[in-house]
Amino acid sequence: MKLLIIGSVAAGTSVGAKVRRNDEDAVITIYDRDYDISYSGCGIPYFVGGEIADIDELTPRDAKWFKKRHNIDIHTRHEVVKVDHDSKTATIKNLETGETFEDDYDTLVLATGASSFVPPIPGVDADNVFSVRNIRNADAIRSHIEATDPKKAVIIGAGFIGLEMAEQLTYRGIDVTLIERLPQVMPPLDSDMACRVEEHLEAKGVDVLTGETVVALEGEEMVKEVVLESGKRIMTDFVILSVGVKPNVELAKQIGVEVGKTGAIAVNERMQTNVPDVYAVGDVAESFSVITGEAIYRPLGSTANKMGRIAGQVITGEDAAHRGVLGTGIFKAFDLTVAQTGLTERDAIEAGFDVEVLHNIKPDRPEYLGGKEMVIKGIADRATGRFLGAQIVGPQGVDKRIDVFATAITFGAKAGDLFHLDLAYAPPFATTKDPVLYTGMALDNAIKKRARLITPQQLAKRIAAGEKIQVIDTRSKAQFEKSCVDGAVHIPLGELRERSKDFDPASPTVVYCNKGVTGNAAQNVLRNLGFTDVYNLSGGNKNYQTSKRLF
Amino acid sequence: MKLLIIGSVAAGTSVGAKVRRNDEDAVITIYDRDYDISYSGCGIPYFVGGEIADIDELTPRDAKWFKKRHNIDIHTRHEVVKVDHDSKTATIKNLETGETFEDDYDTLVLATGASSFVPPIPGVDADNVFSVRNIRNADAIRSHIEATDPKKAVIIGAGFIGLEMAEQLTYRGIDVTLIERLPQVMPPLDSDMACRVEEHLEAKGVDVLTGETVVALEGEEMVKEVVLESGKRIMTDFVILSVGVKPNVELAKQIGVEVGKTGAIAVNERMQTNVPDVYAVGDVAESFSVITGEAIYRPLGSTANKMGRIAGQVITGEDAAHRGVLGTGIFKAFDLTVAQTGLTERDAIEAGFDVEVLHNIKPDRPEYLGGKEMVIKGIADRATGRFLGAQIVGPQGVDKRIDVFATAITFGAKAGDLFHLDLAYAPPFATTKDPVLYTGMALDNAIKKRARLITPQQLAKRIAAGEKIQVIDTRSKAQFEKSCVDGAVHIPLGELRERSKDFDPASPTVVYCNKGVTGNAAQNVLRNLGFTDVYNLSGGNKNYQTSKRLF
Repeated sequence: MKLLIIGSVAAGTSVGAKVRRNDEDAVITIYDRDYDISYSGCGIPYFVGGEIADIDELTPRDAKWFKKRHNIDIHTRHEVVKVDHDSKTATIKNLETGETFEDDYDTLVLATGASSFVPPIPGVDADNVFSVRNIRNADAIRSHIEATDPKKAVIIGAGFIGLEMAEQLTYRGIDVTLIERLPQVMPPLDSDMACRVEEHLEAKGVDVLTGETVVALEGEEMVKEVVLESGKRIMTDFVILSVGVKPNVELAKQIGVEVGKTGAIAVNERMQTNVPDVYAVGDVAESFSVITGEAIYRPLGSTANKMGRIAGQVITGEDAAHRGVLGTGIFKAFDLTVAQTGLTERDAIEAGFDVEVLHNIKPDRPEYLGGKEMVIKGIADRATGRFLGAQIVGPQGVDKRIDVFATAITFGAKAGDLFHLDLAYAPPFATTKDPVLYTGMALDNAIKKRARLITPQQLAKRIAAGEKIQVIDTRSKAQFEKSCVDGAVHIPLGELRERSKDFDPASPTVVYCNKGVTGNAAQNVLRNLGFTDVYNLSGGNKNYQTSKRLF
Repeated sequence: MKLLIIGSVAAGTSVGAKVRRNDEDAVITIYDRDYDISYSGCGIPYFVGGEIADIDELTPRDAKWFKKRHNIDIHTRHEVVKVDHDSKTATIKNLETGETFEDDYDTLVLATGASSFVPPIPGVDADNVFSVRNIRNADAIRSHIEATDPKKAVIIGAGFIGLEMAEQLTYRGIDVTLIERLPQVMPPLDSDMACRVEEHLEAKGVDVLTGETVVALEGEEMVKEVVLESGKRIMTDFVILSVGVKPNVELAKQIGVEVGKTGAIAVNERMQTNVPDVYAVGDVAESFSVITGEAIYRPLGSTANKMGRIAGQVITGEDAAHRGVLGTGIFKAFDLTVAQTGLTERDAIEAGFDVEVLHNIKPDRPEYLGGKEMVIKGIADRATGRFLGAQIVGPQGVDKRIDVFATAITFGAKAGDLFHLDLAYAPPFATTKDPVLYTGMALDNAIKKRARLITPQQLAKRIAAGEKIQVIDTRSKAQFEKSCVDGAVHIPLGELRERSKDFDPASPTVVYCNKGVTGNAAQNVLRNLGFTDVYNLSGGNKNYQTSKRLF
């Protein structure tokens, strides 16, 4: 069996290694037009920032290692320029010498990856404009910084790479301006979570400009100014482009391989394309949602590894299938960890779910042992109770909770199941009732209408639509006077039983406290007193004040 | 509805709070013979060590708070001395005044907790011998330390409280001797994981004496010497008892409530005892295993909270049921986190499973961003593929992985399911193939006999039984010469294809490397060359050398 793999980063090398594990005799050849193989692209921001001293850390393996270990031939700087799938022949160009030659195969694996999207604006080709994709990029950015000692940087695109770069450049003492075309940073998050990240970036000294489009990069040889559609002009010493990637599907199209609606190659669960004996894996291939089954594109090293192994299994006759992704993602932005898994509120509504939403503000462990608050936004389906997704922002313990949610969603957990999880409890690690348990419990109570929830955005929308809603602040007078929900009446919990007579038990009523717990107690009091339409404000006044910039 | 709850720590107060949330009119009274309510017993070691400055941190709520917040009457220092369940009347003694009185109820909740087991040995009542259970204990230990500036401590019992105390006392500069009757520290772990904890304790300066029984505590007023059955005598300035707890079932027995085989009160999933209108929750009640369904006793604050809430729901007519526990536990011992969930190898064998075992040694994140190795012992059922349990020892990232395993086990995950989890990947948090995924993958390969595993203990046992096993070390010569498996032949992976001719392909063959990955490659080479009975040594030479003290 002669296997030809195009692409030698995560997915391509995984296919090769897995095929070799199952088949000593396969002839396995990998071509890659890049210089480096099997590198950790996700580590690039940390190399640029200097947390990773040596670029070799990101390229732990070379072609020689693969030859020795797996008897796989990897040829870098070799571009497959043409494939004739009828004759099963590829034409390869050696980019160092310019010569071309042919190679044949029985099975072809497209692991051609994705390239940084470069917006078509004037000045984008200047030498101080950098993408953040491969090892050459990484080297170029750090060399530029070390050679020119820049004071200012503009980052275009506030996705996770843009945010990681903003952190790392700030740590190097560079003033960063972050520009995002959409109205929020980190577009995959819901706006009421993204705004927390934006606040934090600003607190750390990053200039964040959302809803702004770059129209030109100006300067002589080097870009000196970034020009926005709004007319703003930002001086800079260099520019980082992080506006996303596009899958490298040119070869695929050449041989009739179908590209899906996401723009990446359509594959089945066995990583097979529509063309027999042609597989696609990694950043060039579509994935699909564990929850909805819909094709989605989530280029990530962890998924690429999985796809590569599965393709290798299938090619060697094992029974294996890709089970899809949840779109789980995580990144660090200064003192915050930001993570998500499953559907956002926006996604879930788009997918047709009737969503229940909770903002749960809880410490990761007891405050007496250094616990700090995180905000979990949990989303569940009212019809089935199924837990659909979580977004978490907080200084610590976030990665643990997102992985627990991801695992639970994978197995089809209902919100009400989460309360029953026997998670590890000891004060250095968690609270007795872990934030995950509490999230599930509160969502379940809301779905079962025992303790209904309303988000600040939902409340603002209903009030804006002219609905008359009784809003009651149950905190202390001092807290109320400091900040409160627009139009709220102040009634401390202790006086609520008595003063509830002043309200109409049949009208929609919203109660709240600082974060939600006392609000829930107030809600129970009113419900037990015969109020029929009582909501607890999700995440309390704390969440309301943060969300306020959104309405 | 008149509800009487005996006990005011985690479970009792949870019942009360939940009943109140559902029922404004219930009359709820709690009696407790102790001084403090709703305290965090798990935080006591950290108060003793000084990480928690103020004892009030552990007792955030008092009776006044419960009255104001939940309209619940809590009477501390009031012992329920007798219950007449026919007339539904309790006799209560005010421990401050000595007076007794009666109170009646409709529903009774036994949340009487557990007490420290005090071994019946001479000297145990001396003033410098301390249990670690309640706030008074905590205060007494810290006061004693502050008043007498002790140099030496003996801790009797190496369960998690003993180990947490060993850490905290060492941090205070006290020389600690830890004595355990069983042959290993942390008896709930398998011996091949417990030995790692023991090594670490010794490295941190704790004298660990396992397999030793204390027969007397000697001294005049104060204990000065601890006498062991072996004849050893250990000088000390004070003694900590942490040999476990016993549930306080006296009142339960008085009214005919059934005690289970664990010694705790037998309850159904609704937290009901065999006696109508009598519930039991928290450390006095049995739980049951999510995996086997068998009754088990796992007194823990997190479980107590769950039980309390469930009882409160049931009492007020909600449909709720306890779903059991996995025996998940976690603790910190100096630089190590030690955690487990589900069944140990020993448990699983006892429960009749045909177990597959893997020791997976992997960093929690890339080493270039500070990743450090953890050891995961994963256990799965060969018959069904079900993942049964995990034990993890490592410096960081352990709490996350144990919670992911606990969640997966809860939903009945098979080992092969774990590889497919879409966990959150970014270099500051995880590797592209998270240790959880790798654990599931390797166990699945072993179960499907694609890559069989053998543990060091299994290998030693088979060799000791006289079986002829070919053992091949595939590492470098230098590594082999430094330490190797007894009787191993050295053949580096690169020479294995050639030199495999010297071995009998039909005989049992064990290959290994340092941790397991190259061993797996060697195993594939031999299998593809026609070897029919090849094992990869679980956890490689690294695990073998650590386990060696066990055989």
